[in-house]
Amino acid sequence: MTATLQAVSPDLIQALQAALGADHVFTDRERLEPFGRDETEDLHVWPEVAVFPGSTAEVQAVVRLAAKHQVPIVARGGGTGLSGGAIPVRGGIVLSTRRMNEILELDEANLVAVVQPGIVTQTFQETVEAKGLFYPPDPASRGSCVIGGNLAECAGGPRCVKYGVTRDYVLGLEVVLASGEVIRTGGKLYKDVTGYNLTQLFVGSEGTLGIITEATLRLIPLPPLNKTLMAPFPTLDQAAQAVSRIFQAGITPSACELLSQAALNATEEHLGKKFPREISEAAASLLLEVDGFHDDDVERDALRLGEVCLEVGAEDVLLAGTPERARELWGIRRSMGEAVKSQGDYREYDVAVPRALMPDALRAIDAVLEPLGLRALSYGHAGDGNLHVNVLRDALSAEAWAAALEQTGPAVVNAIVKLGGTISGEHGIGWIQRGLLGLQLSPANLALQRGIKASFDPHGILNPDKVLPPG
Amino acid sequence: MTATLQAVSPDLIQALQAALGADHVFTDRERLEPFGRDETEDLHVWPEVAVFPGSTAEVQAVVRLAAKHQVPIVARGGGTGLSGGAIPVRGGIVLSTRRMNEILELDEANLVAVVQPGIVTQTFQETVEAKGLFYPPDPASRGSCVIGGNLAECAGGPRCVKYGVTRDYVLGLEVVLASGEVIRTGGKLYKDVTGYNLTQLFVGSEGTLGIITEATLRLIPLPPLNKTLMAPFPTLDQAAQAVSRIFQAGITPSACELLSQAALNATEEHLGKKFPREISEAAASLLLEVDGFHDDDVERDALRLGEVCLEVGAEDVLLAGTPERARELWGIRRSMGEAVKSQGDYREYDVAVPRALMPDALRAIDAVLEPLGLRALSYGHAGDGNLHVNVLRDALSAEAWAAALEQTGPAVVNAIVKLGGTISGEHGIGWIQRGLLGLQLSPANLALQRGIKASFDPHGILNPDKVLPPG
Repeated sequence: MTATLQAVSPDLIQALQAALGADHVFTDRERLEPFGRDETEDLHVWPEVAVFPGSTAEVQAVVRLAAKHQVPIVARGGGTGLSGGAIPVRGGIVLSTRRMNEILELDEANLVAVVQPGIVTQTFQETVEAKGLFYPPDPASRGSCVIGGNLAECAGGPRCVKYGVTRDYVLGLEVVLASGEVIRTGGKLYKDVTGYNLTQLFVGSEGTLGIITEATLRLIPLPPLNKTLMAPFPTLDQAAQAVSRIFQAGITPSACELLSQAALNATEEHLGKKFPREISEAAASLLLEVDGFHDDDVERDALRLGEVCLEVGAEDVLLAGTPERARELWGIRRSMGEAVKSQGDYREYDVAVPRALMPDALRAIDAVLEPLGLRALSYGHAGDGNLHVNVLRDALSAEAWAAALEQTGPAVVNAIVKLGGTISGEHGIGWIQRGLLGLQLSPANLALQRGIKASFDPHGILNPDKVLPPG
Repeated sequence: MTATLQAVSPDLIQALQAALGADHVFTDRERLEPFGRDETEDLHVWPEVAVFPGSTAEVQAVVRLAAKHQVPIVARGGGTGLSGGAIPVRGGIVLSTRRMNEILELDEANLVAVVQPGIVTQTFQETVEAKGLFYPPDPASRGSCVIGGNLAECAGGPRCVKYGVTRDYVLGLEVVLASGEVIRTGGKLYKDVTGYNLTQLFVGSEGTLGIITEATLRLIPLPPLNKTLMAPFPTLDQAAQAVSRIFQAGITPSACELLSQAALNATEEHLGKKFPREISEAAASLLLEVDGFHDDDVERDALRLGEVCLEVGAEDVLLAGTPERARELWGIRRSMGEAVKSQGDYREYDVAVPRALMPDALRAIDAVLEPLGLRALSYGHAGDGNLHVNVLRDALSAEAWAAALEQTGPAVVNAIVKLGGTISGEHGIGWIQRGLLGLQLSPANLALQRGIKASFDPHGILNPDKVLPPG
């Protein structure tokens, strides 16, 4: 389907410059360099040109030119992806949405916002929070990622355990199709069952079905209060059991993060400080948060959370008494990504399993890694069963590491799928996981997905070689 | 695409009997009669055969036979649909899921249930409620509709304002495709971004893309307490303003229903009793509910709701002091459907608009109906902006009524679309609204939907002539 893709010609560059203005078309290698990477480990390719449209009409113009010239076109948001989704692996045009970064409307009566795709997630959040409103999805990169990228990947984050993921906040979209035509789906509507759910088909499709140029997002009232707790457990199983028991007790925490001992100790090393002994030496800790509108409720839920943890065997529960102390506890969790990176080369797997099976998942992964002489630092969104498993290269030679990775991918996927899990909870398939998708989804399932792709993008110009496995 | 569909042959009947047992294949007119209708007003057609598979394998066998013989196959749940979705308008096979009515698994540790499509929604709800768990979607027909139909239509109900609609509770599906192959999507997973979101594409697709044979549903803890209020307003605008203000105040009611005066008075007449004067004479009333886990919270939210209504101009607020009194207030709302039916012929529109625009929507509809000498009884899910507008035939002759309906459909749709609304909030497009879909969705949008249908069901055997407009 993508066999006929062409290289970018001087004619096409000229046409792009004519359409957008020369300032909004990059062709020199120095300025192109950052557009060939995202935050996925060890990946860099080269786009042929990067463009910066300022409106939906300009996006249409670029897509029409790409279609006419049969050139790949890869939409790019903040470039913070972790599966290579925004990497132009076949060259062609990178279309950055960074100039389209406005909040077009903040409709308080209907509790919706209409935004352009290039707005930074945190900027959007802070704007609505100033009005007492709340857009919950909070990927770790929220200070630099953008809503368009969040939509393309269906981003998650710690708060999703209570509030749901990006898809749960999308009411409508404007999308430029592979033909350059533009469509709208949904609207400021909490209920809409007219035809097939195209909105949710575009969300998470990683720019392979269309380019999102506007989104209508649902907002909710901002809960002004929260409490943070940390509970260290002697065993991983007890931590996992506490997670199930918390939900069964009728409490939905606004965060429920798992920190394994190995990941914690790596973070201590990275930060050059020691956490309290109960935490350092616990096999696993839970970082918990509850939020709400009333002091009594939040206090009561926090105490109840603590009680459940103690009942299940937590050695202690640290309740943050001040916002500063809460920030410190969250600081441990937030430093884990950096702590992993400081260990040298690694490969991250973003698995999710039924949440009660987290211990089984971590054990199954250890069982896969041990014979290969590898170890993993694991942490993640326990309430969602979503674990970030970081396999470390440690002292392995480059060849041995490359060879090991050939084996770890399929082995991890097979272990996770056996538990009813998935190979991506929130990072997407993108480029680096597409070869593994066939281990999770059946040929008949993949055939439907290929049918959708072929129907939406018959010439395969939209983010080619992403999501779907080769062949 | 459906041009080559065939009639059911004696050979096919024999093959169906061989596959399912003769007891599970109906061919006589008397027993077929109910399978040619649902609860949509004024619709009856004839299936050629009705079949009752008992397993996924038997569904596959039936679909393979339908595919081999190029015969339409229409999946049917409880037959309570309101858009003719389960009506075999091209004849062929009606496939009832009523024998596939088991809860296959109730997994309390992961808060999920795995069910067959034929289980009655209320039966499922009562089973999980006995364990302290909650499956919120509550279509009016929940005593006789089934989960499979709820999934096919993406059913709603009063509680959806707080808890979301059917799609929000679907984590995974097993689906028999037009080829007879079976696929699985999702799982017991709160996060899953592997490939395109087929789960949400099947939900709401009304049996036109595949036949759902199993669903993995998310459960939440059951809030044991609730309070019901009724607030009569002097004007519709004030009632609508109260709805916006309630959400802005940070309270999410577990029901927020609008009862127009005309609908209320019709209900008084139907039930042969008078409601309190404040309610009878109010231009519009809101029926509100709050729920929760703690007495204090529910009390406080109920009082706050009442205060907001009074601030906006409610003449009074009736707070139900006992469960019996709450049932009485709900009884008014629950009798509205029957009250409408008792008025004789009617045509129901299931529109949804941005919730602050409800008064505009009702005025726009009145403006459409008045020149035609028609009136409507309207009520619905105010918190979602979802209104059930029932246009009454009253004393019109049959011809005048038929002629009026030709005009009301497009006029209502155009008025609603101008407000950013949709022609179906929760009833689906099915058969009766497909001719109107093109007034809401653009040709490019519909072309994508047709592409999906053609790709999933190339011979057009699955519920032909539904959802998508002719042509």
